[in-house]
Amino acid sequence: MNVIDPAARLTVEPPVLAGTLHGVGLGPGDPELITVKALRIIQASPVVAYFAKRGRRGHARTILDHWLKPGVEELALEYPVTTELPFAEEAYGRELGDFYADAAERLAAVLASGRDVALVAEGDPMFYGSFMHLFIRLEGRFRISVVPGVTGMSGCWTAARAPITWGDDVLTVLPGTLGEAALVERLLATDAAVIMKLGSNFGKVRRALAAAGLADRAVYVERGTMAGEKVMPLAEKTDDAAPYFSILFVPGRGRRP
Amino acid sequence: MNVIDPAARLTVEPPVLAGTLHGVGLGPGDPELITVKALRIIQASPVVAYFAKRGRRGHARTILDHWLKPGVEELALEYPVTTELPFAEEAYGRELGDFYADAAERLAAVLASGRDVALVAEGDPMFYGSFMHLFIRLEGRFRISVVPGVTGMSGCWTAARAPITWGDDVLTVLPGTLGEAALVERLLATDAAVIMKLGSNFGKVRRALAAAGLADRAVYVERGTMAGEKVMPLAEKTDDAAPYFSILFVPGRGRRP
Repeated sequence: MNVIDPAARLTVEPPVLAGTLHGVGLGPGDPELITVKALRIIQASPVVAYFAKRGRRGHARTILDHWLKPGVEELALEYPVTTELPFAEEAYGRELGDFYADAAERLAAVLASGRDVALVAEGDPMFYGSFMHLFIRLEGRFRISVVPGVTGMSGCWTAARAPITWGDDVLTVLPGTLGEAALVERLLATDAAVIMKLGSNFGKVRRALAAAGLADRAVYVERGTMAGEKVMPLAEKTDDAAPYFSILFVPGRGRRP
Repeated sequence: MNVIDPAARLTVEPPVLAGTLHGVGLGPGDPELITVKALRIIQASPVVAYFAKRGRRGHARTILDHWLKPGVEELALEYPVTTELPFAEEAYGRELGDFYADAAERLAAVLASGRDVALVAEGDPMFYGSFMHLFIRLEGRFRISVVPGVTGMSGCWTAARAPITWGDDVLTVLPGTLGEAALVERLLATDAAVIMKLGSNFGKVRRALAAAGLADRAVYVERGTMAGEKVMPLAEKTDDAAPYFSILFVPGRGRRP
């Protein structure tokens, strides 16, 4: 994949009448935080696809409630794994790889039939997005356009009314899946931090923040910009229960003229 | 400032008929990458304020061309400094502080007269945003709402069709204003990187990327998502000229099942 040269984006000429795949960011959760471009593309696409856990509607589909026009064909791409397995587990990686390959072929079949597909997802498609796994499988075979979105972390620090970076602040975005020592090391080397993918990692992340001397400055946000939003200082959170898509962050304290 | 407790947001009761200040993100540059919420608020506000360099319209005002309704009152907040002075310079900090204080009072006068103000800016208002300097000066005196936006960096990696973070990748956002040694140290400790505030720092940042062994993976984006957009591998950029708002980034190479 050459990510730069537009001429290299298609390695084979797609079927003349093939559709375009649109990777569309929906934003952090509040349906109004979708972009005008995303909305236009979704409402012009005959097929709208989204990821969801098996048996759940998911955030993406919930956001679509507000915008989907009648008559559109929906394509749910359901993750095979409903509980969080350790990522290192080989079987999990294999199962997920099979899932992405299968999902890519389902989209390819629609595109080959001449219809456009809007594959929507929360946040920004190119920032830890499931879309990326289909993008690398379909890039070169079909026309693909990508519409960036407001990230979940922007939604969360805005919900907390907390400017995240000032002046020359360094911001580090850390997955909570990292080991405790690695988290501490990274936290000590930054001015501002966002820690994502909490879930069962919450207790470990809390210990890492404490070890880095940042527990008192950390803010917890759950369901940022959505119904049921929770914002609180980490110090006031008494349990270690956190959804996978909640975040913790430490605002920077840089230059304020 | 208490960023958490909603009850603490107003430390004094604002005048009953005072307006609300809306800090509104416009996104990375493409006018269609504004959110539906930002557009609704801008078109409902009798006064729209924006930052600009003296004598220039600026990106924010250019984006507004597409959305501003006739009859709205415009309020240009013009930076006093048109050339880039070193930030450490005391006089520069003082001049900027005076500017923000003056701008806050101009907005306060409009709000006190009972009118809402939409203060718009490129990107996300709480991420290195000038808005933040007025937010901390007016928080507690007036009602303030903030609308997050698509960041410039999301616009840039999307323009390059380059997924920025995969799996457990760590992302570090670095201001190009940092010293060369600090840049190298941070680049060596991360999986993916974004370097902002280039301008006259470009040559130094290029050297730091080379020292960290990342020059071959770095991508340069100028005017991402806007007319005149330029995307190229750093290796193909033959000069060191770069606008202040261009960026360099290094995509992560994390887990891809």
